[in-house]
Amino acid sequence: MEQQAVTVYKIGGGIIDDAPELHQFLALLAQAPGPTILVHGGGKGASALMRQLGQEPVLVNGRRVTDAAALDLVVMFYAGKTNKEVVAQLQALGVNALGLSGADGNVIRGQKRPVKEIDYGFVGDLTAASVNHELLLTLLQAGVTPVLCPIIHDGQGQLLNTNADTIASAVAVALAPVLDVTLHYCFEKNGVLRDVNDNNSVIPEIDATHYAELRAQGVIADGMLPKLENAFAALGAGVRRVIIGHALRLGSDVQTVLTT
Amino acid sequence: MEQQAVTVYKIGGGIIDDAPELHQFLALLAQAPGPTILVHGGGKGASALMRQLGQEPVLVNGRRVTDAAALDLVVMFYAGKTNKEVVAQLQALGVNALGLSGADGNVIRGQKRPVKEIDYGFVGDLTAASVNHELLLTLLQAGVTPVLCPIIHDGQGQLLNTNADTIASAVAVALAPVLDVTLHYCFEKNGVLRDVNDNNSVIPEIDATHYAELRAQGVIADGMLPKLENAFAALGAGVRRVIIGHALRLGSDVQTVLTT
Repeated sequence: MEQQAVTVYKIGGGIIDDAPELHQFLALLAQAPGPTILVHGGGKGASALMRQLGQEPVLVNGRRVTDAAALDLVVMFYAGKTNKEVVAQLQALGVNALGLSGADGNVIRGQKRPVKEIDYGFVGDLTAASVNHELLLTLLQAGVTPVLCPIIHDGQGQLLNTNADTIASAVAVALAPVLDVTLHYCFEKNGVLRDVNDNNSVIPEIDATHYAELRAQGVIADGMLPKLENAFAALGAGVRRVIIGHALRLGSDVQTVLTT
Repeated sequence: MEQQAVTVYKIGGGIIDDAPELHQFLALLAQAPGPTILVHGGGKGASALMRQLGQEPVLVNGRRVTDAAALDLVVMFYAGKTNKEVVAQLQALGVNALGLSGADGNVIRGQKRPVKEIDYGFVGDLTAASVNHELLLTLLQAGVTPVLCPIIHDGQGQLLNTNADTIASAVAVALAPVLDVTLHYCFEKNGVLRDVNDNNSVIPEIDATHYAELRAQGVIADGMLPKLENAFAALGAGVRRVIIGHALRLGSDVQTVLTT
């Protein structure tokens, strides 16, 4: 019997902060075929709200240091405002979306990041074992599109702030043994570019061998390197394909498809 | 075949605002037998946050007038912070809770209250037909405890602020044709009191005939009257029994049971 398919889409903070672009993306997502899971990042709203309340956001290596007051605000913003607005818009577009934090149905349980050189506060780390894939399967079978925000829990009552890329990848890997999984990173470029300054230089397909070549040639470097390392790790863990493309060109052929 | 049972519990803002009492209630709820749905109210946190941001909450007849800025904050607070904290605590207590706004899985769709003498803003009205009881049944069958916050949607992308009592009652009525439904209002008194000043004067059982007598005698008046009117309306619409009791005496015999 052919394996059922699912696509795990991930959108980042940039598009969350731009209401017209977000709506445009959601309209494209509503047209995308097959069962779908959406993972969304945070955006700048929580930081703006912190500043309005006289708190100063602290970022170390691009990661938010999340003290108790910051956690309150990111939970409100990501699990409250952003998640519910995305869900309500998808519902209006005919998609039966259902928003989840990791605490909901214990869908993603992680652990507070151990304090080493930096104390990131209430930040959660997770593994593929963190994901309750049975609940996701139940929801997909009921025709529901799960919409995950980057908040998880530790199973002891503590909510934790987590990176959305990490969640998307863990969800994709957790579903890989039972579904044909595509992990689709939507961002602000057209795909993996041969020339970072030319959005038309998209490399349409990259497999592991080709990836090693591109890396050796220095074509893939800087910000794209960790993204592709994560992508190939997901492929190594059973995800069928990873797509990297522009959020507003969803459904077009302009994108990069990564396979093992 | 015997009908499956469910109890719809409703807790109000008072207990939401008191973290130790809330935790005590959730620990009692975790011990309650049988499938459960929890509906929670809002509490004062959203108003406190509004004031911190220099906005002044407006209440008319005890109902919040919800403009766009107020809606943002109540969505963040009720669907974000309160809902996720309750869910995370229940998970830690061994209850597989899953938080929902009305937009999630289209579980409660209402309509913006028409403007008459007062424009309540983004406030939603609903009927029993507003409730997607199929999703609730799917979740209950999967061993999940739905936790509903007082935010719904209109199906056209708009979130709306709604009264938690109204949601609890609509959910109970919507499930009544397929389940044996108990609607359990948890508040800060021991039940319906013969003497409002004596918390030990609980009337253990009231049926419709008894209710008419008590009303005629003036025993039931003021704040209790609308609560009991709603309770008997729910009973008239098929709910098996309504329980009114103290949130922190859940599981004791000290309570009022209302039946037709």
